[in-house]
Amino acid sequence: MTEHPPADTVKPVTISYIAQTAGVSIPTVSKVINGRSGVAAETRARVEALISQYGYRKSNPVQRTNLMELVVDDLEHMWGLEIIRGVQRVVREHRVGLVLTEFGPDRNTIRYWIDDTIARRPDCIVTVAQLSDSEQNQLRARGIPFVVLDPASEFPEDVPFVGATNWAGGRSATRHLAGLGHRDIAMISGPGHLYCQARLDGHRSALQAAGLPIRDHDIIRAPLTEDGGHSAAVELLNRPRRPTAIFAGNDLQAVGVYRAARERGLPIPEDLSVVGFDDLPIAAMIAPGLTTVHQPLTEMAMAATELALALGRGEPVSQTGIELATKLVIRGSTAPPIG
Amino acid sequence: MTEHPPADTVKPVTISYIAQTAGVSIPTVSKVINGRSGVAAETRARVEALISQYGYRKSNPVQRTNLMELVVDDLEHMWGLEIIRGVQRVVREHRVGLVLTEFGPDRNTIRYWIDDTIARRPDCIVTVAQLSDSEQNQLRARGIPFVVLDPASEFPEDVPFVGATNWAGGRSATRHLAGLGHRDIAMISGPGHLYCQARLDGHRSALQAAGLPIRDHDIIRAPLTEDGGHSAAVELLNRPRRPTAIFAGNDLQAVGVYRAARERGLPIPEDLSVVGFDDLPIAAMIAPGLTTVHQPLTEMAMAATELALALGRGEPVSQTGIELATKLVIRGSTAPPIG
Repeated sequence: MTEHPPADTVKPVTISYIAQTAGVSIPTVSKVINGRSGVAAETRARVEALISQYGYRKSNPVQRTNLMELVVDDLEHMWGLEIIRGVQRVVREHRVGLVLTEFGPDRNTIRYWIDDTIARRPDCIVTVAQLSDSEQNQLRARGIPFVVLDPASEFPEDVPFVGATNWAGGRSATRHLAGLGHRDIAMISGPGHLYCQARLDGHRSALQAAGLPIRDHDIIRAPLTEDGGHSAAVELLNRPRRPTAIFAGNDLQAVGVYRAARERGLPIPEDLSVVGFDDLPIAAMIAPGLTTVHQPLTEMAMAATELALALGRGEPVSQTGIELATKLVIRGSTAPPIG
Repeated sequence: MTEHPPADTVKPVTISYIAQTAGVSIPTVSKVINGRSGVAAETRARVEALISQYGYRKSNPVQRTNLMELVVDDLEHMWGLEIIRGVQRVVREHRVGLVLTEFGPDRNTIRYWIDDTIARRPDCIVTVAQLSDSEQNQLRARGIPFVVLDPASEFPEDVPFVGATNWAGGRSATRHLAGLGHRDIAMISGPGHLYCQARLDGHRSALQAAGLPIRDHDIIRAPLTEDGGHSAAVELLNRPRRPTAIFAGNDLQAVGVYRAARERGLPIPEDLSVVGFDDLPIAAMIAPGLTTVHQPLTEMAMAATELALALGRGEPVSQTGIELATKLVIRGSTAPPIG
């Protein structure tokens, strides 16, 4: 692509410019844009990449379908419901139908998704799942805007997103524990997700601010599940010098920490303080109630939906990257350390 | 309608028969069927009622859209996720798009739903929400089949449904408690939902089978929420002769019972046995683990979706009313009574 001017210096271009640059006919570009067959895969990809690069948009905006799509990887985790409810609240107001797709455990079984989505011509998409570069290009080529909700990985700066202040949230959790007097604070972090990294960095930042040492072996990575939290907590609590507080990567992991503490006969919060992240309904249902970092999942979903719908209507949007504030909710699982 | 022959004696009829019987023109009937405007509301309702009664179907089946709809009243409760996951699993296999509608707290704000759904022409509908007679008639008139999932109220016998064996489930819960030696077994039942009534009747049946008295004041109705269960349990546990076991209407109520027992200093299961209903993920996360009646929500949603899709394809279906078996899952919240 080095023969083309960089995309950020140019305005959206015409269909004939795209055709010329790609070395194909105008009808071929038109076929790609309208998702019709009869174009070689390689040609299609080249045209899509160009359209994606130059930001081509039809002069006649596509007829609105009053449909939008929400795409998630896996609804296994309870926060899926919070997100769906937020999206529903907004589509109800706007009288837009919501197509919901869960990719499920095997992404390969749903490779057809992008074709079917293009055929449905939604006005916009909110995605929690990670879309491939090819999928992103195909959506851009058809002028279907998408907003990434709760981004799990890095993406180009021009991709609109709505996330949470995960770094600040992680920092507030550990600051709370340090403020109670804890000196041995372990963290169970999630896998490679971007938001897990941000929470972890917030944790480290709070340790440093409190003058506490940052020890690598006090940080264990585990899946964001109850079992993941349980295994990590068993390892931490079996150490000769066990931590007096554990900051879990999310509420489900914290539930696993509770189980490990029960198995070891360690009452919470007397012998072990625990902080979670998310503030799912379960955080208030378990005993003792879980001190956790509230992530405004419903509000994030609402904001992402409003943003996507505005982009779908072609409205100018001044700010397309948003992080909503987290908030520490103190319940019964944290207390000063004994002794 | 007494001037018409009863619906069960006739076969699906022609459009001209409907027009004649309704005293309108054939184009008017056609307009109603195709959801076009220009028909007085009263006329429209009369034609729809006739079509609904006679089971008219177009000779040319409608072009399939490969869209289906899932309609729920309120996603507040955690079982919503189990249902959505079951539906997703099936639509993925069939490569069908899912439109999800949550009516939300105020049904009036979403009166447009039926119009928009008809305009989207889904191949079929699965509904957890209760549809009005008018909505049901409009769907029948357009040949859009719908299946009721987890029916909350009575409906005509020809409406396809998928439920759970709530009566048998309620019976197994109380039989388990009676088998442990409990003689004072209270039940917290939900509001008027049909499935709550079935669970309650199963409870009564098990009491009777165990030779235990059925006392009206041992049955308290409360909302199917944690707070509902908590309030009811507070009332039961404050009695001079308190029950040694409580069968809650669902798992969320059981969580409220746990809270009430903690407040009274009554350990579970030593001083109070508790049984729930649903077997949501939370049942295994709280301590002690909740003995509960597993309701196969995901499998029910899968069955309802398969049934609806088959009806949408116009396939003959031999059995359109199904109850899937519940199963008692024994965890740590039940034990013989003390003394």
